[in-house]
Order: sequence, then C-alpha cells, then structure tokens
Amino acid sequence: MMWNYSQPVDIRFGNGRIKELGMIAKELGKENGIIVCGHHFKDSALVKTMIEQSNGLINHVYGDVMPNPSVKNVMECSDVIKQYNCDFVIALGGGSSMDCAKAAATICLTEDDITTYHGTGLPLPKEHLPLIAVPTTAGTGSEVTCVSVLTNYETGYKGPINSDNFYPAIALIDPELTITMSPRVTACVGIDTLAHALEGYWSKGHQPICDALAIHAAQLVFNYLYTAYKDPENIEAREKMCEASLIAGLSFTLPKTAASHACSFPLTNLYDIPHGEACGITLDYFARMNEEAENGRLTDFARKVGFHSVDEMADRIYQLKKDMNLTVDLKKYQLTEDQIHQLVKLSRHPNLYNNPVAVTDEMLYVMYQSLAGNDTKEKALIK
Amino acid sequence: MMWNYSQPVDIRFGNGRIKELGMIAKELGKENGIIVCGHHFKDSALVKTMIEQSNGLINHVYGDVMPNPSVKNVMECSDVIKQYNCDFVIALGGGSSMDCAKAAATICLTEDDITTYHGTGLPLPKEHLPLIAVPTTAGTGSEVTCVSVLTNYETGYKGPINSDNFYPAIALIDPELTITMSPRVTACVGIDTLAHALEGYWSKGHQPICDALAIHAAQLVFNYLYTAYKDPENIEAREKMCEASLIAGLSFTLPKTAASHACSFPLTNLYDIPHGEACGITLDYFARMNEEAENGRLTDFARKVGFHSVDEMADRIYQLKKDMNLTVDLKKYQLTEDQIHQLVKLSRHPNLYNNPVAVTDEMLYVMYQSLAGNDTKEKALIK
Repeated sequence: MMWNYSQPVDIRFGNGRIKELGMIAKELGKENGIIVCGHHFKDSALVKTMIEQSNGLINHVYGDVMPNPSVKNVMECSDVIKQYNCDFVIALGGGSSMDCAKAAATICLTEDDITTYHGTGLPLPKEHLPLIAVPTTAGTGSEVTCVSVLTNYETGYKGPINSDNFYPAIALIDPELTITMSPRVTACVGIDTLAHALEGYWSKGHQPICDALAIHAAQLVFNYLYTAYKDPENIEAREKMCEASLIAGLSFTLPKTAASHACSFPLTNLYDIPHGEACGITLDYFARMNEEAENGRLTDFARKVGFHSVDEMADRIYQLKKDMNLTVDLKKYQLTEDQIHQLVKLSRHPNLYNNPVAVTDEMLYVMYQSLAGNDTKEKALIK
Repeated sequence: MMWNYSQPVDIRFGNGRIKELGMIAKELGKENGIIVCGHHFKDSALVKTMIEQSNGLINHVYGDVMPNPSVKNVMECSDVIKQYNCDFVIALGGGSSMDCAKAAATICLTEDDITTYHGTGLPLPKEHLPLIAVPTTAGTGSEVTCVSVLTNYETGYKGPINSDNFYPAIALIDPELTITMSPRVTACVGIDTLAHALEGYWSKGHQPICDALAIHAAQLVFNYLYTAYKDPENIEAREKMCEASLIAGLSFTLPKTAASHACSFPLTNLYDIPHGEACGITLDYFARMNEEAENGRLTDFARKVGFHSVDEMADRIYQLKKDMNLTVDLKKYQLTEDQIHQLVKLSRHPNLYNNPVAVTDEMLYVMYQSLAGNDTKEKALIK
C-alpha cells in the first residue's frame, strides 16, 4: 500500500486557551491581526475580550461572513485586510468563517478576484497571510483542513477550492467557546463529524494514520454527542466533541469524503437542509452498503468503535439522529419522480467516486425512493 | 485536558519508493546530496543504486556511522558535508544513522562542535540542511522524531539532544529495504516499537492523537512482529512493521517514553543489551504496574488492541519475547546486590518520571531482584 501523509497545522487544545491568542501572534512575529466572523460574533463580548487580551496585536474585525459564504464575502474581507494592512488573520466561528478567512488570507496579497480560482482548477499563488483558526462549533474540522467551500450566488456555483495555503498556521481549540451552540446546531455539526470519520475511513483514498484517527473520532461521537445535545453546558461532552471534530478533520482531509457528502450537496442546495444534517441522512444507508467492501474492513471499524457489526453501528446512527430530532428520511418533501431523478443526477459529485462500492444511478434511485417513502420494498435497507 | 500537537514531517510510504529519492530532492529544490549510513551500507548495491537513480543529485557518502554514534561521528560527517558543499542529507539505516545525520545537518552550518549542545541544554542554532530519512529497520521511529541520541566516548556521557531542527523534511519509508534485517534485529527493533506505543500511551504526557496512533501501532506489532521474525521475506509483515514503527514514532515523540526506556539505558550501557531488547525486558512488568493508573485507561488500550485485560496483554508480551528468543530476565548475569543497586540508581533517568505510577527505588529494587531471579516471592509479577 502506498500513501503520503502530511499535517502542517500546529494544534493547541484546551479550555480557556482563547486568551493565548496574543501570545500566539507574538510567536508568529505578527502584530496587526483581523478577526473574521459572522454577524453572530461581530459585536459580541467574546470578540471584544479577544481584542482586549491581545495587547494591541488584534485591532480589526470583518464580521459579515454569511452562512455558505459567497465569493463576494471573500473579496470584501480581502479589501478590509488590505485597507488596514493586516499581517495575520483569525477565523472565528464555524466552517463558514474559516472558508471565507482561508480564501481572503491569500487573495488579499493579490490583485485577483477569487472567482479566478473558484471552480477553475487554477492553483492559487503561494503567498498568503498566516491564519489562526478558532472554531466555535464542533463539527467541520475546518481548522485542520486545506479546503474552502465558497458559493458564487451570481452563477449559482457552489464548490470547494483546495490549496495548501488554506492549512491554518495554528488551530486554537477552546472547547468553552462551543458551550453556546444550540442543541440543534450541536446535533447537525456532530453528525457532520461522524460523517467525516466514517467517510475518511471508507474512502477509496483511506490510509493508516487517518484510519486510526477516524476510529478515535467516531468513538467519541458515539460516546458524547448525545450528551452535548441534551446537556449543552456539560463541559466534558463539549471537550470530547471538540476533540472528535478536530481529529475527524485530520482523518478525512487527505482521504476525502465519499457518497454521503456527495448526496448532501443537492439536499442542501435544493431543500435547504443544513450541511451536517444532510450528510447524516444517507450515512447509515452507505454504512450498510459499504459493509463488505475491501474485505469487510468496515466491520473492523465497527468493532473497534464498540459495536458487534456494521449493522448494529448503522442502527445506532439512525437512532442517534432520531434522538436528536434530525431528519432521517425525505418523506415530508413528498418528492415527485422528477425530483428524485434530479437528486440522483446532482449526487454525481466527485466525492461519490471515493465510495468503496461503485454507486450507480440505479442504486441512488432506489435509495432516494426509499428515503422518500415511495418504495416499501426497499425500506428495510434504511430501517 | 490541555495539549499541543504538531507533526512537521512529510511522510511517503510504500514498497519500491526508494527510487523517488531524486524526485524528492528536486521537490526540495536541492541538488547536491550526501548519504549518511553505517559500514554495512557504505559500499552496498543499495547505495550505488540510490546514487545512480538520483540523476546526479546525490554524489557523496559518509559511511562510517557506528552503532550508538559518537559525537566524533557527527563532527566527521559534518566535515564531509562542508567539504563537498552538500545542500541536503539522506539518512539511511536504523536509529544510529539518523541520530548522526540529524546532528550533522545542523552542525555543518556552524563553526561549533556538537559537544557544545550535547547534554548542555543549549538550544541549537535554527538553520539546518533538510534531511530525508530512509529507515532500513522497523523500530526506532526516528524518521518522524526530533531526537538525536549521541555518545561522547571521551566523557562516557550518552544522551539525547532534542531540537525541532531534527524533524526530517521527508520520511521515505520503503518496506522492501527492511527485508534484509536478520530475525534477531527484527525482534529487537520490533519490541522497541511496542515500547514506543505503550509508553507513548501511558506516559504522563499522553494526548489524544498520540493515543489513537499508539493503539494502531501496538495492534500491528501484536499481529505482525512474530511473522516478520519467523518469515523475513514476508513482505506484508515487513510492510505492517514499518507502518507500526513509523506510527509508534508519531505516538511517542511528543508524550515521550517512560520507565521501560529509563531502565533500558543502564541495561544497555552496563550489560551491552541492544536498545530494543533492553526496553522489552521490563515492558510487561511496567504494563502490570500501570494497569490501574489514571482510572485504568491502560485497560481500554488493552481491549482496543484485542485483549481482555492488561494482564493478558502483559502475558502476550512476555510470550512474544520468549518466542523470539529475546532476554526475558537477567538471571544469566548472576547479579550481585551491588550490581542491583547500581541498576536501581542508574534507572533514575528523566523518562522514569513520565511513568503514570511514581516509581520508587524500592519498586525498582524489587523488580531487578525479581528479574535477577533472586526473589522467588516476587517472580509471579513478571511470570
């Protein structure tokens, strides 16, 4: 087996460590930082405290990142960075803030528009400002990945840019920052974490270090996600879910995700289902489908994570979604035949081809019919 | 829990990949490489092929690294690097070649003697030549660690230098290079790998990513070491042991090793027991001692690795040593009371303090008596 592994992000993990930001800036030899975040944090006490504690090293905020950040967001953010001559960037928030900050930290050193690189495959220029990623959700793992997902609302194109530039210099994970996440958000991003671990493991691009990390992360999700959902102030559960999110991020960033992520994109774009929840909808389905692939290595995963079989693990995923009030099927959309065909077509995203079992249109059709509740014969497959 | 993690080494793993050396040099933008190795490889076909396949990018060899390399080795190697104006270094071999090459790759850019930094705690200057580590044994994990262990034969001091300089730029692991290891060397370095995984896990400095990697590595040792020992040309076993060695290296380089490594140093220095074998002598003993530490987390390790209990795992370690003809006790040395006291005293190495159970002199005394066969009452402890 042949594989390459690299992991250039410096990780700092622990409760209360947000106060180390200024020290980290000093370590990086930087002195004029900007916080990139969404409206939710723009005028928050947290941002004020971060600025105060930085000893004058953080002085600016770009607080207009929208969910599913736009290419326009990136250009606005880049303009603010240019205007204030910032020399490092702090991404504060969930995946959206990080996606925007990653792209802005490169584009601000150019005269280019980000659309030159979005969906074109053109590699970014190598120079970029150092990024400190400070997640406030436990889900995306974006603090250790080299991907930025952006949307061009003018063309309707949503897609990732991959670049080594996007690896944060530092990932600063302070689990206390995630306590304010609502149970609903906790559930959505928590299931995203589980999808990262499972798909990183069963992806055709799987490799040993990522396998070991995926097992570790998935076990944490099964042990702590429901507690974090039910008891938001349980700091142990928050801490373990932050650990899970981070380590699942490491487990999928090289192998890449697979069919559940591929299917999530049309579910999000057409039916406005949040990313994590959308990934979760098909996760137990693909777990069962992938059970026998590559000499049944998923059974080894299931056992190491604490189940007797892949089937038992898939049942548990289904139940976990139910217990957290996440969507488990598509019945409420009363999908027409045409809509199902559209889902099948739009699920043919590159990640689909990472699935260890080749997924045909017919398989997708049967799955979506079954999720839609149209085919009782197939229901057993997804419970 | 608070922890930091970084892993700056770029890993390339796979059979036959030694031929990529020239390509890697090009990637690094370098053009005048030197191979650092021991006598065993100096005039070997392997080194000749490496030079031939490098397209003129590797032209020199320093082939006089001795086992337990000396500070003199480092200075000689550094002089050769200077003489030929080399701009990158390839360490080929086991831990000794890497220890020597790591130190030489920094010292060659100075006018200093390595003894200025050996055992003095003085930090090395930051500049250093990039190192490509090519292990030919599966054991030390040195290809991903930041330590160089050197001996000053004039003063009798043997000890490590830790420096971020020592992380290789690239670890190139080609399992086919390990096929020529004798069963005896396979056994010694394989047990060293197991010690790295176990001690990285139970070290007081343990942290989650390293925990997950330690479990992965230990399981590979239990599954494949005996096969690699018994059937040296079994390429699957060689590949899995290379994976184990590398991943165990990642699992201990930050948490550091503990009591078994501490005790190994006098066993090697006084009784000439090879490093890995010396670590192995006390490994099952400390496993049993550490069973209940930190809420019994070693039981979780043992179960994940496939045993019912720490005791069962310790029994297996003992049996594995027996099966591979490794030393399991110290009876043959017919140790006197004074010699046992000397072992107790010299085991008080800094790593001893990483053990999760505080190890008293009395505990060491009882252990060494028991290993010496002097105290039948205690024998049960080590079987």
